[in-house]
Amino acid sequence: MSIYLHDIPLDKAQQRLAEVLLQNNLFGVLREDEQELDASLVGRVLSRPVWARLSSPHYHASAMDGFALRAVDMEGATLTRPRTLKTGEATVYVDTGDPLPGWANVVIPIENTEALDGQGNITDNIRNPSAIRIREALPPWKHVRAMGEDMVATQLVLPAGHVLRPVDLGGIAGSGHDAVWVSEKPHVAIIPTGTELKPIGQPVGTGDIIEYNSLVLAAQVEDWGGQANRFPIVPDDFDAILNEVRRAAEGHDLILLNAGSSAGSEDYSARIVENLGQLLVHGVAVRPGHPVIIGLIQTDPEARPVPIIGVPGYPVSSALTGEIFVEPLLARWTGRPPFKPQHIAASITRKTASPGGDDDYVRVAVGRVNERLLATPISRGAGVISSLVRADGIVIVPRGSQGLEAGADVQVRLYRTPAEIERTILVIGSHDITLDLMAQHLAERQRRLTSANVGSLGGLVALRRGEAHLAGSHLLDVETGEYNLSYLEQYLPGIDVMVVALVGREQGLLIPGGNPKQITSLDDLRRDDVRIINRQRGAGTRVLLEYELGNAGIEPENVHGFDQEEYTHLAVAAAVASGRADCGLGIAAAAVALRLDFVPLFKERYDLIIPRQHYESPLLSPLLELLDDHSFKTAVSQLPGYDVSVMGRLIAEVSAGTAQ
Amino acid sequence: MSIYLHDIPLDKAQQRLAEVLLQNNLFGVLREDEQELDASLVGRVLSRPVWARLSSPHYHASAMDGFALRAVDMEGATLTRPRTLKTGEATVYVDTGDPLPGWANVVIPIENTEALDGQGNITDNIRNPSAIRIREALPPWKHVRAMGEDMVATQLVLPAGHVLRPVDLGGIAGSGHDAVWVSEKPHVAIIPTGTELKPIGQPVGTGDIIEYNSLVLAAQVEDWGGQANRFPIVPDDFDAILNEVRRAAEGHDLILLNAGSSAGSEDYSARIVENLGQLLVHGVAVRPGHPVIIGLIQTDPEARPVPIIGVPGYPVSSALTGEIFVEPLLARWTGRPPFKPQHIAASITRKTASPGGDDDYVRVAVGRVNERLLATPISRGAGVISSLVRADGIVIVPRGSQGLEAGADVQVRLYRTPAEIERTILVIGSHDITLDLMAQHLAERQRRLTSANVGSLGGLVALRRGEAHLAGSHLLDVETGEYNLSYLEQYLPGIDVMVVALVGREQGLLIPGGNPKQITSLDDLRRDDVRIINRQRGAGTRVLLEYELGNAGIEPENVHGFDQEEYTHLAVAAAVASGRADCGLGIAAAAVALRLDFVPLFKERYDLIIPRQHYESPLLSPLLELLDDHSFKTAVSQLPGYDVSVMGRLIAEVSAGTAQ
Repeated sequence: MSIYLHDIPLDKAQQRLAEVLLQNNLFGVLREDEQELDASLVGRVLSRPVWARLSSPHYHASAMDGFALRAVDMEGATLTRPRTLKTGEATVYVDTGDPLPGWANVVIPIENTEALDGQGNITDNIRNPSAIRIREALPPWKHVRAMGEDMVATQLVLPAGHVLRPVDLGGIAGSGHDAVWVSEKPHVAIIPTGTELKPIGQPVGTGDIIEYNSLVLAAQVEDWGGQANRFPIVPDDFDAILNEVRRAAEGHDLILLNAGSSAGSEDYSARIVENLGQLLVHGVAVRPGHPVIIGLIQTDPEARPVPIIGVPGYPVSSALTGEIFVEPLLARWTGRPPFKPQHIAASITRKTASPGGDDDYVRVAVGRVNERLLATPISRGAGVISSLVRADGIVIVPRGSQGLEAGADVQVRLYRTPAEIERTILVIGSHDITLDLMAQHLAERQRRLTSANVGSLGGLVALRRGEAHLAGSHLLDVETGEYNLSYLEQYLPGIDVMVVALVGREQGLLIPGGNPKQITSLDDLRRDDVRIINRQRGAGTRVLLEYELGNAGIEPENVHGFDQEEYTHLAVAAAVASGRADCGLGIAAAAVALRLDFVPLFKERYDLIIPRQHYESPLLSPLLELLDDHSFKTAVSQLPGYDVSVMGRLIAEVSAGTAQ
Repeated sequence: MSIYLHDIPLDKAQQRLAEVLLQNNLFGVLREDEQELDASLVGRVLSRPVWARLSSPHYHASAMDGFALRAVDMEGATLTRPRTLKTGEATVYVDTGDPLPGWANVVIPIENTEALDGQGNITDNIRNPSAIRIREALPPWKHVRAMGEDMVATQLVLPAGHVLRPVDLGGIAGSGHDAVWVSEKPHVAIIPTGTELKPIGQPVGTGDIIEYNSLVLAAQVEDWGGQANRFPIVPDDFDAILNEVRRAAEGHDLILLNAGSSAGSEDYSARIVENLGQLLVHGVAVRPGHPVIIGLIQTDPEARPVPIIGVPGYPVSSALTGEIFVEPLLARWTGRPPFKPQHIAASITRKTASPGGDDDYVRVAVGRVNERLLATPISRGAGVISSLVRADGIVIVPRGSQGLEAGADVQVRLYRTPAEIERTILVIGSHDITLDLMAQHLAERQRRLTSANVGSLGGLVALRRGEAHLAGSHLLDVETGEYNLSYLEQYLPGIDVMVVALVGREQGLLIPGGNPKQITSLDDLRRDDVRIINRQRGAGTRVLLEYELGNAGIEPENVHGFDQEEYTHLAVAAAVASGRADCGLGIAAAAVALRLDFVPLFKERYDLIIPRQHYESPLLSPLLELLDDHSFKTAVSQLPGYDVSVMGRLIAEVSAGTAQ
């Protein structure tokens, strides 16, 4: 049982680390290296300033093809009172880039001269005439690139700490250098531990976990200017881990020891650090990720000590530990400023609860609806890597706060550019796999589709609150047998909406492969030996089940498991797959996902509910076009149980709550 | 003589290219490649969507170390009415991450249980007791990570066209993949041409140009996801270039043919394209850079045609051609969206003139002064690569406009993050090399120093207009012999300013090495055989010269060259170095820069003029600290002719124009 006695605030932890780094002379650039100018230097950090060795241009250069001369010799020349200058003496031909003779201080473009032969007649030999005639006067230094116009020898071209970009390489070369001093990439060892871990690509059984934290950490390290070295997985064995850490301490500047997911695993990390050096921090008050361990180990008294970070095992905690602790360290060691992520102001859409003792890193999706930037919290689980993949940013709820109220103003630390946010379409409500296909097709059309699954009714509520651009809904009106329309009056009063059909789809019973209980119709739900798993109230599938049970004259209280609720088709499928239930109503795609069998029972329509103002916006037009796109329709029709014949049909225009 | 008969607007040029690419099936991803998951994939572009193969978790997993059980078996348990469950039957110990038995649906953390032995007594064997006692009830699925909580098999993990980030690799691995399909890097040949070019690192004589355009283009190509192949320099010889282009057409997807700086060079490029294929665009109405050539060549009738871009020879034109034409092409071919640079609104500080026929790309420095974001145009020359190195962004003045008025609202396409802009200190006025050292030292203190050289008086005028945070000035009051103070009343009325000494420095005569004319004092300026080069009106050095000439009783009209003006110390040095003048007044550093000799004559003080509101701002405090910093003082004192004893001294506080 692991108790984090030493959980300390983030700033304290960072301060503790900084002090120890300072004491051990590990606070600045670790090593530097002189490298020949090459395209591969982009992204590297200058460890020394670049002072110009040469001026650029390093001579007065002609900026045109023309004749170099003294400005004083042109003075007074006009169209009617031209001047004639002998070549060789008073003027000389120069190509663009040619040096000016020492006595010249201006260039007249060749097209503004008249070439004369020895007799003073116009000649075609324009580049090598005997003389030229000029009908205008130019001031000194016209059409001349003066020495040092670009850069002057001894001036600062770029300061140390600058991260090199392509044009910088030109500036450095142009100022007379063929090499630069850059900081060396710090070497980072990444050691994954855990008996339950399996390397990527190996088959996994129940209880096995695919080890990808070391991959994410390695990619972060390299993205931030380090060089990563992934060690093989070490099982949960104290001595084995100790040996591997000792081995890593040679030849690496930092060790990232990734704990297994078992709670004892962080204890190992702390004990290993104590065993090999000094434990500085045991637990940081950050969520997710607080079991972070920080220490300094020294296996060789002669060598420089090596910082070690015990990284928590959950993927989100692991990746955030990288952002919080590893990135600033690599910034120091390469000499660049730490990343300053861009922040934008937004409103949070939902109430969030935070543990008062931790800085809480809440992942959010961000989009603009009705001129408001909205931040919608996504899954909080430390194991949900997809929450980081999908996140547009992070809202940090500071220690001392118990959470945020819905509508609160927050600052979002962005993972994407504001431009990406502006082209984001937010869809909410009932989830359907067609929306995933739509996201893929929209990506090719410069739109991002971000979806949140809150059920059909939840989607309508969110639309009313202005939290999304459209909602997916398949709510059956049990009175009329029609879909969605009757709900709009109630849930979207006073809002003009368009109802557009997306797909027809089959609902049916998800059953284990081989159908062990021989379930073939809704009637089997009366059976005592059949236990179902149901959907939550407000879900279209729940409404459908209640409606069809009514049609069949089956009382819900006679259906075993009727009160057991899940929130998604997939969760229903999972309950069936695990044996917790014998069947559940859901879509065919969910059966395919978990390799279940499917008993088709009903056809239903799944609609998109789109407020008119969004329906008519440029943001949504690629989405509406897609409903008429052949390749999209083909892709959807290849999904099991889908019918695209209704796709794109305008079911209704509803004005202020009244269907027309 | 080159006339761009075919100069067409940028959008037309891009459209023409797009049409031809479409016709030739070159409009999308060129090739794709399946690659094993690896940290090096960051930045690569998915060529196919990633659909989850496995759910994650792929089983119901315990989220705690504890006991798995059925929620129904806990119902009703309270502190005073505990429930006891036998292990093995009703409950089983699970570590975090362990799969739940099929019959279990909740986990109670081990610390919330009491372990009992066979006799019903409390035991220390907490992980393997005979039974557990529970004093609370938990709802189903508490402390369980349900199958698919993170990702569900068949769902979309990432769409095609997505640029991979570190966390994405985790999401892809976690959803059951060990490899991904990414677009291949397009192969780009870069051919520099020009007889005047010398490779980086070789000695250059007068008229030689260091060839670095191919390096910048290669770095751009690699930064944008391509693979660059730099060809050796080809002299200006039609057949030689033709052969090299023909050679490059094999095995490359794009050819960048970088013209020499001679005006005939672009003609070569156009003729070569016509010779080997189809010339699409000959000149684009963009400044700088309009002689861009676009074509499609086909040396092998069996092979796919290869686009070729004739890139202008001037470094700024070359790099901007990369941004305008190459980046969007590489975006298409790798399948990612083209870069959407961030824009910010700013006021332009100076009037700019633009050619009405071209889209004019004006490079600007950007900073925030008094809550206003200001964009200051920097050098316009197409040969001035330092203008791109220094630029914080670009203002595009569209065709049809003759330019911008000072104060006009503009959109700046940013090269840096807004955070970098916010930590930028703008210094203006007289330039001194100490400011370069200051920029270097400030870079270590999280500040950027951007300097503009407009002379001392120009600096005061800019301060009054609120265009900079501080000004460098060395204006001598010829009445009092004091520096700067008397000018403040006149130029900064009503503004509270602090005057802080930066350095004392020597001014003297810059003369050619070996002193051929034996110039040893100011008196030599009376000589008929001595010709000087002067500074512009408003320059501190000009004021100093006039003052000292007066002291010495020398009339300016008796000084040869007195009316010949240059704008910088370096330009004066260059005039002397080139033989155009025999001497000029300037600082010792300028002599060192161009390897001239120096006759020290006067000592002067160079001050920083800082409006009080900036003096007291957090932005400037690192700069003020620097004036007291030992390592900075040491660095400055090592420059020739500098005295740091006055550094940091508060010379005066001037309130509303009155020195105190």
